Amino acid sequence: MPLQRIDLAAGRAPDQRRAVADAVHRALVETCGVPEQDRFQIVEAHERGVIVFAPEYLGIRHQDPVLVQITLNTGRTLEQKQRLYRRMAELCSAAGVPANDLVVSLVEVTKDCWSFGDGVAQYAPAAPTG
Amino acid sequence: MPLQRIDLAAGRAPDQRRAVADAVHRALVETCGVPEQDRFQIVEAHERGVIVFAPEYLGIRHQDPVLVQITLNTGRTLEQKQRLYRRMAELCSAAGVPANDLVVSLVEVTKDCWSFGDGVAQYAPAAPTG
Amino acid sequence: MPLQRIDLAAGRAPDQRRAVADAVHRALVETCGVPEQDRFQIVEAHERGVIVFAPEYLGIRHQDPVLVQITLNTGRTLEQKQRLYRRMAELCSAAGVPANDLVVSLVEVTKDCWSFGDGVAQYAPAAPTG
Repeated sequence: MPLQRIDLAAGRAPDQRRAVADAVHRALVETCGVPEQDRFQIVEAHERGVIVFAPEYLGIRHQDPVLVQITLNTGRTLEQKQRLYRRMAELCSAAGVPANDLVVSLVEVTKDCWSFGDGVAQYAPAAPTG
Repeated sequence: MPLQRIDLAAGRAPDQRRAVADAVHRALVETCGVPEQDRFQIVEAHERGVIVFAPEYLGIRHQDPVLVQITLNTGRTLEQKQRLYRRMAELCSAAGVPANDLVVSLVEVTKDCWSFGDGVAQYAPAAPTG
Repeated sequence: MPLQRIDLAAGRAPDQRRAVADAVHRALVETCGVPEQDRFQIVEAHERGVIVFAPEYLGIRHQDPVLVQITLNTGRTLEQKQRLYRRMAELCSAAGVPANDLVVSLVEVTKDCWSFGDGVAQYAPAAPTG
């Protein structure tokens, strides 16, 4: 159910893009109980000038930031989110994105906000008469 | 008011892209009371490798998924959302996207979260003195 | 903390794209208390046909709309949002985008929905034992 948007610089090699995508999904699986097969990602590589950012925020240097925005169901605890950020940073670091350059934004929605195909709201509570 | 992001493979023909955009908007008009003229869509066609997905989730096969993310006002009922998904699947199917490949994500916001131009929050409740 | 997505036509000159990005960020700084260095933008220029829109909505003409979607923390008042839209329209107008063509969508999230790097939820409330 998470819809994952990953925006990064075209300067990063295609196999690094895929490694980052794998890392982000893996972190969701490991820390947030996301099923392995529940993977929907849009990984866009942008030319210079598309991603605009300041060189430093909150004491963290940004040189070539990877912006990860994940739409997911509400209900994760603060501790789960903290583990998610930590694990994502570890795995992305192994994929060549230093932890300082990993910027994450979550958007939380309710369970009836998803259809995974066939025109059905698979996560919605069953109707009383259903 | 819905802002519609549609991400699909560049392999789909340009006229199919437009047919999908028409289908998604039409479903919103028919099932969610969205005005015909209230149409704001970003329809992006991506090279291979940008959209990353698993071959199957919840028993639904995904071969060439079209990812539709719609930001809209809160207030739609579960039944309305179910009709939206169903109608979107029907109309997209007629446009060449089989129902199994239509993946939908809704993001709900409040009415003061929109400006349609002129620097004004057109949907916001009028100020008491306004 | 705002994550700013700006989608506009490739027909707009690169320096105009940057001027629009500056204008949107400046308006957030001036009206919503966003720190100057808290800048994360994805400014995408699209070929014809990617941005689909109706010629008029709510009496506002759209000819070459710039779609701005901002994910930010909840807590801004209606008045603040109204000032944001107004100021953004003023500054974008000076950058060459007439006020009628500036379309804005906000998505509000909670403070634990952000990590600005290092795998940490910088805005989250400190843990009791922290």
